[in-house]
Amino acid sequence: MIRTGFQVAARLGHRRALPGGPRVLPGLSPTSAFGSSVDSLVSIFCLKKTDFKDYALPNPSWCPDMLSLYQEFLEKTKTNEWVKIPSFKSNKDHIQGFKLPSELAVTSDKDDRRLFTRCIQVEGQGYEYVIFFQPSQKKSVCLFQPGPYLEGIPGFAHGGSLTALVDEAFSKTAYLAGEGLLTISLNIRFQNLIPLGSLAVMNIDVEKIEDQKLYMRCIIQSRDQQTVYAKSSGVFLQWPLEEESSH
Amino acid sequence: MIRTGFQVAARLGHRRALPGGPRVLPGLSPTSAFGSSVDSLVSIFCLKKTDFKDYALPNPSWCPDMLSLYQEFLEKTKTNEWVKIPSFKSNKDHIQGFKLPSELAVTSDKDDRRLFTRCIQVEGQGYEYVIFFQPSQKKSVCLFQPGPYLEGIPGFAHGGSLTALVDEAFSKTAYLAGEGLLTISLNIRFQNLIPLGSLAVMNIDVEKIEDQKLYMRCIIQSRDQQTVYAKSSGVFLQWPLEEESSH
Repeated sequence: MIRTGFQVAARLGHRRALPGGPRVLPGLSPTSAFGSSVDSLVSIFCLKKTDFKDYALPNPSWCPDMLSLYQEFLEKTKTNEWVKIPSFKSNKDHIQGFKLPSELAVTSDKDDRRLFTRCIQVEGQGYEYVIFFQPSQKKSVCLFQPGPYLEGIPGFAHGGSLTALVDEAFSKTAYLAGEGLLTISLNIRFQNLIPLGSLAVMNIDVEKIEDQKLYMRCIIQSRDQQTVYAKSSGVFLQWPLEEESSH
Repeated sequence: MIRTGFQVAARLGHRRALPGGPRVLPGLSPTSAFGSSVDSLVSIFCLKKTDFKDYALPNPSWCPDMLSLYQEFLEKTKTNEWVKIPSFKSNKDHIQGFKLPSELAVTSDKDDRRLFTRCIQVEGQGYEYVIFFQPSQKKSVCLFQPGPYLEGIPGFAHGGSLTALVDEAFSKTAYLAGEGLLTISLNIRFQNLIPLGSLAVMNIDVEKIEDQKLYMRCIIQSRDQQTVYAKSSGVFLQWPLEEESSH
């Protein structure tokens, strides 16, 4: 049987009952206890790492709506009110310099792996998305344009493709907002189908942080907010990453 | 604003209040009313259509566990107790000879489109899965082996990739079990991470069919059932497809 974070989380249930008990996860060093400020997390994880390709950049497949809204948000990053979250090929690149808890350590690393939402490499065919994060309000906006390889009902994005991106956008937001690492649960309610090639705007925020869990919410709409595509909520487990020792 | 099935579904809410009202969806011909037997749906949608490639067939990337369980279920199809659901490149191929309701009709069809869970074409890199359906008990088993392009936490399948496949396996099962076409909602609760390249077994069933909705359930486990990866539930809207007229 594989030991993973969720099993640790299950044990955590007992810890929580201890009044005044330490709010660190079993097996983790107290030096990585919660409390890293959002600003410090942003400065660590949203730095321009020039050795990795950022996939969250405009390309010729982007529709005019996606491009113009991207430029609007990019403008807002100049005042530090918003931050653009870079998007690399793998989460391994995102957490470079940090290590996963030993429960999640993987021995083999031989494959060419990819973050699921960056699995399709040809521009415009799969996921086109970019996430902007606002540190002060712990909220994000994700611009999403589903390509023809994300089809469900002919002509429309598969509900599963939207749900997967909600999970991904939640997880990046949850980590920056409060070191949320693992999805515990996710709910989604669909209201309209997203036509392939069009823009959907996802507004994500953190409803609350309680008992080492982040409660996330998301509404997915057309740019003019006249069409609600779906509403979603999710719970993430807080789990700070430790810095890798330099020797 | 796009008119889709969900808006029809919203209108349906009023209809339901009418005692003894007709159980057909507005805008659909009464000749396509519910009541197609599971057996007739299976015979229409699970026939071998030799002009389409079936992606749910063993290939060299399959791990021994996946292959042996596939062969076990294939053996069961010989008695008609179980049926293997074929898996084509697009849902357009799955519903060949049938038409979508006009609310879901798409004018343009120029792109090379793919069903999201068949979006990665290289064997073993993305989704490897096959679904077997048992008509008499309205349940399915889906064998799932996530490839290295489905990564989330390094070394493990992205929660979103599992959720998307649950949605897909629900939808195929829901259509065969009772003409469930559109996902209304989906919930998933994760318990353990699935290592990339390993086998996860999804057991799906229909909890109930009520008020033109199918209530689906799924548990995702290791083959030996010692590790539960996740549990999920979903609600699907019944919506029979009409046969395309031949002229």
